[in-house]
Amino acid sequence: MLIVMKKGASDENVQGVVKAAEKRGYTARPIPGGDRVSIGILYNKGSVDAGLFLGLEGVNEVIPVTKPYKLVSREVKSQNTVVMVGDAVFGDGSMPVIAGPCAVESEKQCLAIAEAVKKAGAVMFRGGAFKPRTSPYSFQGMGEEGLKILARVRDVTGLPVATEVMDKENFDMVEEYADVVQIGTRNMQNFTLLKRAGKSKRPVILKRGMSALLQEWLMAAEYIMEEGNEQVILCERGVRTFVRHSRNTLDLSVVPAAKKETHLPVIVDPSHAAGIRDQVIPLALAGAAVGCDGLMIEVHNIPEEAVSDGAQSLYPDQFEKLMQKINRIHEICKDG
Amino acid sequence: MLIVMKKGASDENVQGVVKAAEKRGYTARPIPGGDRVSIGILYNKGSVDAGLFLGLEGVNEVIPVTKPYKLVSREVKSQNTVVMVGDAVFGDGSMPVIAGPCAVESEKQCLAIAEAVKKAGAVMFRGGAFKPRTSPYSFQGMGEEGLKILARVRDVTGLPVATEVMDKENFDMVEEYADVVQIGTRNMQNFTLLKRAGKSKRPVILKRGMSALLQEWLMAAEYIMEEGNEQVILCERGVRTFVRHSRNTLDLSVVPAAKKETHLPVIVDPSHAAGIRDQVIPLALAGAAVGCDGLMIEVHNIPEEAVSDGAQSLYPDQFEKLMQKINRIHEICKDG
Amino acid sequence: MLIVMKKGASDENVQGVVKAAEKRGYTARPIPGGDRVSIGILYNKGSVDAGLFLGLEGVNEVIPVTKPYKLVSREVKSQNTVVMVGDAVFGDGSMPVIAGPCAVESEKQCLAIAEAVKKAGAVMFRGGAFKPRTSPYSFQGMGEEGLKILARVRDVTGLPVATEVMDKENFDMVEEYADVVQIGTRNMQNFTLLKRAGKSKRPVILKRGMSALLQEWLMAAEYIMEEGNEQVILCERGVRTFVRHSRNTLDLSVVPAAKKETHLPVIVDPSHAAGIRDQVIPLALAGAAVGCDGLMIEVHNIPEEAVSDGAQSLYPDQFEKLMQKINRIHEICKDG
Amino acid sequence: MLIVMKKGASDENVQGVVKAAEKRGYTARPIPGGDRVSIGILYNKGSVDAGLFLGLEGVNEVIPVTKPYKLVSREVKSQNTVVMVGDAVFGDGSMPVIAGPCAVESEKQCLAIAEAVKKAGAVMFRGGAFKPRTSPYSFQGMGEEGLKILARVRDVTGLPVATEVMDKENFDMVEEYADVVQIGTRNMQNFTLLKRAGKSKRPVILKRGMSALLQEWLMAAEYIMEEGNEQVILCERGVRTFVRHSRNTLDLSVVPAAKKETHLPVIVDPSHAAGIRDQVIPLALAGAAVGCDGLMIEVHNIPEEAVSDGAQSLYPDQFEKLMQKINRIHEICKDG
Repeated sequence: MLIVMKKGASDENVQGVVKAAEKRGYTARPIPGGDRVSIGILYNKGSVDAGLFLGLEGVNEVIPVTKPYKLVSREVKSQNTVVMVGDAVFGDGSMPVIAGPCAVESEKQCLAIAEAVKKAGAVMFRGGAFKPRTSPYSFQGMGEEGLKILARVRDVTGLPVATEVMDKENFDMVEEYADVVQIGTRNMQNFTLLKRAGKSKRPVILKRGMSALLQEWLMAAEYIMEEGNEQVILCERGVRTFVRHSRNTLDLSVVPAAKKETHLPVIVDPSHAAGIRDQVIPLALAGAAVGCDGLMIEVHNIPEEAVSDGAQSLYPDQFEKLMQKINRIHEICKDG
Repeated sequence: MLIVMKKGASDENVQGVVKAAEKRGYTARPIPGGDRVSIGILYNKGSVDAGLFLGLEGVNEVIPVTKPYKLVSREVKSQNTVVMVGDAVFGDGSMPVIAGPCAVESEKQCLAIAEAVKKAGAVMFRGGAFKPRTSPYSFQGMGEEGLKILARVRDVTGLPVATEVMDKENFDMVEEYADVVQIGTRNMQNFTLLKRAGKSKRPVILKRGMSALLQEWLMAAEYIMEEGNEQVILCERGVRTFVRHSRNTLDLSVVPAAKKETHLPVIVDPSHAAGIRDQVIPLALAGAAVGCDGLMIEVHNIPEEAVSDGAQSLYPDQFEKLMQKINRIHEICKDG
Repeated sequence: MLIVMKKGASDENVQGVVKAAEKRGYTARPIPGGDRVSIGILYNKGSVDAGLFLGLEGVNEVIPVTKPYKLVSREVKSQNTVVMVGDAVFGDGSMPVIAGPCAVESEKQCLAIAEAVKKAGAVMFRGGAFKPRTSPYSFQGMGEEGLKILARVRDVTGLPVATEVMDKENFDMVEEYADVVQIGTRNMQNFTLLKRAGKSKRPVILKRGMSALLQEWLMAAEYIMEEGNEQVILCERGVRTFVRHSRNTLDLSVVPAAKKETHLPVIVDPSHAAGIRDQVIPLALAGAAVGCDGLMIEVHNIPEEAVSDGAQSLYPDQFEKLMQKINRIHEICKDG
Repeated sequence: MLIVMKKGASDENVQGVVKAAEKRGYTARPIPGGDRVSIGILYNKGSVDAGLFLGLEGVNEVIPVTKPYKLVSREVKSQNTVVMVGDAVFGDGSMPVIAGPCAVESEKQCLAIAEAVKKAGAVMFRGGAFKPRTSPYSFQGMGEEGLKILARVRDVTGLPVATEVMDKENFDMVEEYADVVQIGTRNMQNFTLLKRAGKSKRPVILKRGMSALLQEWLMAAEYIMEEGNEQVILCERGVRTFVRHSRNTLDLSVVPAAKKETHLPVIVDPSHAAGIRDQVIPLALAGAAVGCDGLMIEVHNIPEEAVSDGAQSLYPDQFEKLMQKINRIHEICKDG
């Protein structure tokens, strides 16, 4: 941490900061600059709270230097974490694709979609049984019945299944049926849920919050890892910006930025970012090109009858063509 | 809902949309425009899902008209909802101020602060016993012990107490000790928590999510009201923007905008928006002037020793001077 | 500037950075930290370009410490700059209000509005003769004829007039008629225009860009001051965010933040931020409370017939009542 | 345009709106809804100003339906506009790459870079002679001398050259030397400059403003086309968001969204979005995959000695490898 003093701050001010730091057990070293003194906090283990110094007399600014994360950091573990679920391998340089409908609607629907996406090359099936919806009057998902359908899809097709868990209460149940549990964007900082996920034996897909900084996202993963679960897959799904031509703004720069900071795999969900089919295909291709560790794409056999997000679901034949391109792009880009 | 067709969309396309609407039980009426046809969905009760039409052939854009909220809407209930807790009344045109430290640290600390803020005119005490923290390594709050301290503050000072609840698991416990439960910004769309709050006898302070649209915030309140709890207080606490000179951007325009849409009281928390003491005072005054229904302000007796957010906590004497100004401004602005 | 090395960066990497700094004439001092080495760039005059170091081997992050501004900085000149134009004084602790229509439409219109706002206490008249419009098909302003009307308003009412200048070509002309020239939000980084404004004898109102950081806004003012014009008034008018309930998000926290960094006066324009009359009044009151150095408010005698921005223009009687409240709030807040 | 009335708005209110519309020459038709009346403005040519109706009694909301653009619209001209400059063709389904340094520094530098990028497959050279810089103390470019160097690069290598023009004053000069003129992000709504560009014989690269909505960007292009210049190339270069891990957020969803609305070619500049070399390469690949009409990439022979933006400039050998991948990805994605 670097504490930048105001121009003209007195020696007394500087000593005040040094003492405050020492009181907390840190080593503080004043560094004379051109215009002002800065004070470095040295040899600290882990990050220091800026708030401790921000209000002190003579302090102009406090600049964090040490990153607050430990377990998720690539500096701590330089090798990629690899998460394996059936034939899907995340983090080994391959490009596994997870596909399926937004919501589980019926066994018939799910089986039809699962067969189609499997044939096209998807290695995992997705579908929501518990749906976080902005309105209490919207369809909230089929619940346990939906989970049973997912299990049936796995039995029939051999595809592992991923589904969202919304709270600690239902975690045991979701974990029992699903191969991978997903924590949604609205729950990225639901710390109770993160801690429970940290105790799970299942890999966790952690979606980025709607306006989460990279550091906050990684710290959410840190909550999971800190409880013992090392199988965390980060998923970029678009962030909220001023933009109105897409539902969210897919932030592909976060892929190289995150992979620089962490050893965890990073996948991309173009469907929720786009909100409309026409944009899903080009954004999926862009995701494959940017060097992520997998994609999650919504597919529906009859999108116009979908109970939710039909407009962003691909038709099976669109998905099939898309998969071919994704695989070819991945061949080109996989070596970085 | 208005469905805008592409220029040159065929009659067949228009009929396709009309049929899709009728299939869902809506009445659809084509409206010829200068350049293109639009189709109005009429006589619908409640809002219609845009996704149903967005992907259909010939559709250019789908524009929602009906608002999705029912119980929170001022159109449904034109009179202000008034929430009374002890001497604190929210929504009757008065300006109740909630004050206290970010986190409960000790009984001594809380009593000292509570006495000071009560003397200055605060009508409710706040303090966190469960703290949602970005890092798992930061202080997570005193838990039940903290709640007991809050209860003790109430006994000694007579001030009702407000505190945050982070999950359904601890809701019973928090509810037992606190007079008002608070749902934090990171949990604004934790729907399991919202539903539980809807079953509570306690009033709920619902903080706006970090990047929540007004409509999403109101729909979160709708979740609470839909379960039966009508005592919801909305709290603006700053939103995330590109800005770097304050922690968040306090969005005061949301106060008149929200009060136009809903009958629920709207209060303002300048402390979390600012993140630094120098900005808290002017933003608190601005909040009082903008016509909100109350303020929530962090005060600490020894901010430099606070375990969290010391830099944004006011000194008791600053708070006292601020209260006098707040009251005088409120006198001027209260009649709208 | 602080250059933070990667964990495990070699001594050679550190020496590489030190040499690169010395090559540019800076003094570089390595500072050993807990986990990594940082390198301080010391005794530099003015700011250092981060790009010089960002790409070097072993460098993790580059953190600017010295602020890049000179003339606008309060560290350089601690006393408030005071700009006086007729009875309007900006920066001396008073609350001058500039009022008038969005666009100059006719002499009759302008005189009617000017008389009304003067009576209510406004000390400067505003009105656009050159209008920056998103569409080339929208009304672009009356041009020189509009400027003549403004001059006539001044002659009749004694109010000084402020109006926007959009380019260097028309600067001479605008300067001849107007008492204060305004640079609009879309031109905040039109450096050619800023340099010309720096050669003007007229005070300049510099509106904040739609998504300008505080530092960028101050650097735009620096362009003007660097050419010799010290009479710069900063004007916050709302920034672009994800929010949809107001046209822009009025960022009142920038007022205390800017006044901490600079000696220049800072005024607030609630009309363009709000975009709708209902929000203008509470935001104007909030602006007065936050401690700014003046307000700019749109008023129209017949808003429903205005050629532009009628929806955000106050009626004269609304403005009159508002002025009374503004003055009373200012009395309360003026001593900080 | 759809005008949504408040619930319970009176017949008189509805008639007031109808009359206001008719007074402006529009046809207004009331549409009864479930909860409220809406009023459609029909048969209007071009867009209608929302402000005309927003403030009227009983009006709740005004929703634009007709898009305001004419010449740029794909509805007006369905075929792609193709811009040809030497061997570079934008808009015909090919993937031309423009490359070069941020700033022109010397003839030697430019020739070295130009030879390298040409060899790698670039079809146009870029380099700034006039540099818009946040600080007046930063290098402002070589001016006309820089333009002469660009002309020399064209003579020697045969590559056409693109360079930025910052104001009307220097337009004649820039136009004389350059094959393509570029309007930068800070000038996207410098309407005087846009109008001048509209009179140019040169193709114009129009960068998207830092926080420009798609519609605003297209309207800026409309300004150019309206003056007679049909050769406009749109360039996405990242927008400003809350994100801190990249300089700007590259918004790739704008590519399919823009191409749906307009017939103009859309290219992508990953260098300015990223701000750092490590991100430029993956974002360039993503840009190629998303289906844009070209890329603009910064390359420098000795980035560590660049006068500006060295950290984001690729080394020539990085660029060469990148070009191979770009071409292969384009082969895969070009058929949509």
